[in-house]
Amino acid sequence: MPVISVHLEPPYLLFMGDVGDDGHGKTGQGIAYWRPELCAGQMRLPACEVDLGLPELGVEEAVGSGVRTAIIGIASTGGVLLDAWLPALTGLARAGIDIAAGTHCKLADTPELVAAAKDGNARLIDVRVPPKDIPVGTGNKRPGKRVITVGTDCAVGKKFSALALHRELDKRRINVDFRATGQTGIMIAGEGIPIDAVVADFVSGAAELLSPGNDADHWDIIEGQGAILHPSYAGVTLGLLHGSQPDALVLCQEAGRTHLKSMERDFEIPPLDELAETLLRLARVSNPDCIWAGISVNTATLGAAHRDAYLADLESRYGIPAVDPVATGMQKIADYLLEQLR
Amino acid sequence: MPVISVHLEPPYLLFMGDVGDDGHGKTGQGIAYWRPELCAGQMRLPACEVDLGLPELGVEEAVGSGVRTAIIGIASTGGVLLDAWLPALTGLARAGIDIAAGTHCKLADTPELVAAAKDGNARLIDVRVPPKDIPVGTGNKRPGKRVITVGTDCAVGKKFSALALHRELDKRRINVDFRATGQTGIMIAGEGIPIDAVVADFVSGAAELLSPGNDADHWDIIEGQGAILHPSYAGVTLGLLHGSQPDALVLCQEAGRTHLKSMERDFEIPPLDELAETLLRLARVSNPDCIWAGISVNTATLGAAHRDAYLADLESRYGIPAVDPVATGMQKIADYLLEQLR
Repeated sequence: MPVISVHLEPPYLLFMGDVGDDGHGKTGQGIAYWRPELCAGQMRLPACEVDLGLPELGVEEAVGSGVRTAIIGIASTGGVLLDAWLPALTGLARAGIDIAAGTHCKLADTPELVAAAKDGNARLIDVRVPPKDIPVGTGNKRPGKRVITVGTDCAVGKKFSALALHRELDKRRINVDFRATGQTGIMIAGEGIPIDAVVADFVSGAAELLSPGNDADHWDIIEGQGAILHPSYAGVTLGLLHGSQPDALVLCQEAGRTHLKSMERDFEIPPLDELAETLLRLARVSNPDCIWAGISVNTATLGAAHRDAYLADLESRYGIPAVDPVATGMQKIADYLLEQLR
Repeated sequence: MPVISVHLEPPYLLFMGDVGDDGHGKTGQGIAYWRPELCAGQMRLPACEVDLGLPELGVEEAVGSGVRTAIIGIASTGGVLLDAWLPALTGLARAGIDIAAGTHCKLADTPELVAAAKDGNARLIDVRVPPKDIPVGTGNKRPGKRVITVGTDCAVGKKFSALALHRELDKRRINVDFRATGQTGIMIAGEGIPIDAVVADFVSGAAELLSPGNDADHWDIIEGQGAILHPSYAGVTLGLLHGSQPDALVLCQEAGRTHLKSMERDFEIPPLDELAETLLRLARVSNPDCIWAGISVNTATLGAAHRDAYLADLESRYGIPAVDPVATGMQKIADYLLEQLR
């Protein structure tokens, strides 16, 4: 059974609507960062606070630039399509431009959009729909090497770190794939499984499908989800971890974050060593040889002056490489992985 | 939002089809054991190897006995409705008897059955359909006391132990509810959420719905699912554990089982103390005061002669009560819970 393939036709128009500067534009920002060569422009409503640095296109200009797909690059609270977005989106669909989204609510459930897409002979592509008939996970051993990013919380760079590690290994002519598990990752990669949208019984089975058996020298770099000590999402994290049967884990964190973000109640993030021990014990259920490969830190809040000392301290305490995937790159983790797993 | 209510009308006919003596008749056996007063009879095909000890009824006799609901008490491999069952089931539906099932495949997807139910004005009740619009878990603290059963593997008595503990507390006039999370439990309780059928992102949210905030002296006894070190189902286990924010855990195991059952690959069950530590650490994410309340062991393989020594050894090693819910009953665990949590 193949994983979901989204087949988004470039060039893209990134629809950023009226998004504020609050992290709800992550999808558009991720696509613009990792796939700039596929992005022809952006479309923004007057209240939009995010600028991707791409040409500003209206419907006619998008058609004129040969845009094939408009990607909704923003999320609303609750994952719904806002009415304020509809005039622009129906205009694009009526002009024959495919609309793609990774929101919880399906494009296909919005009648105005369905009618416009029919008029324009455009496709409505819902990325957040898992494949059908996913089997229950077996835990059977598969050949090939697998690395997964795990985190101290949501939004600490698990996708970014996995993409950066994939790029670093690819540069070294390693036979490597990035395996996407969330909507942004899937739009960047062009395929993947939205793991949190899978029925709970089949999460580890979905993870097994996502990184199937491969050549012994092939690497899968898997985008982790949630966090093992997160009261909302830990089940997703664990099913994905087990099904991925990783040979190595990369721990992602944000420097200075002491509590889980976006929760009403206070949830303290435990010490890294306690978290690391729990994660490794759980990972070793499906791969008893699993190891830690490094720590990937978003050090933006520290500033350059304190970054090096912070990373050096982590390295001396845990004996594995510590990097900032933006500021220092993933070379040290790639070196360590190739040395340990070859 | 209410949990799913199944409203099965008694008396029941338990349809056992052609089930072998291999554990696939668990649902029928569970209903006959826990709700004998609601069961008017059983219906079996010639190859059936299970006898519930209930009167054998055909369609006409079932109608004559006033049967209101026929419950499919068996599971097929893959969870499908077998063709061999259809003549009996369509006959019952055509005679106006509701059909209820907890299989993966929906009754409503079998056209012959839908037609027969229409003819007989009978309902087709699929228990394994979670409620719509479940929210993401918040981890917010809720009043009331909660106990959940967890296990070393699947099919080690988590449902049985929870029902037995519920019955024991109910006898003592404690304000207590059994919270069902699987199809058999839901049919026994008449309500619940089939937690493994919930979309992964919402599992802990579903668990929060299932045992809502309650009076300070109210107890929920929650049926656990899967096992935290099970490569197929651990994600379900963890989401349910977090959302339940238990005050106490009861560990269920089968004496003598050293490896996970029904897996192709060998998965050794780790030492109890290691498992217990992992489970408690994870449970304390949503309830930092969570404690162990006891060990509930299926000692059937040991025989009476070795049972007492086995349970005494567990008690001396772990310092909490160890019982067999069938052979010794749950009194000791109930005593301990009332002493610790009052």
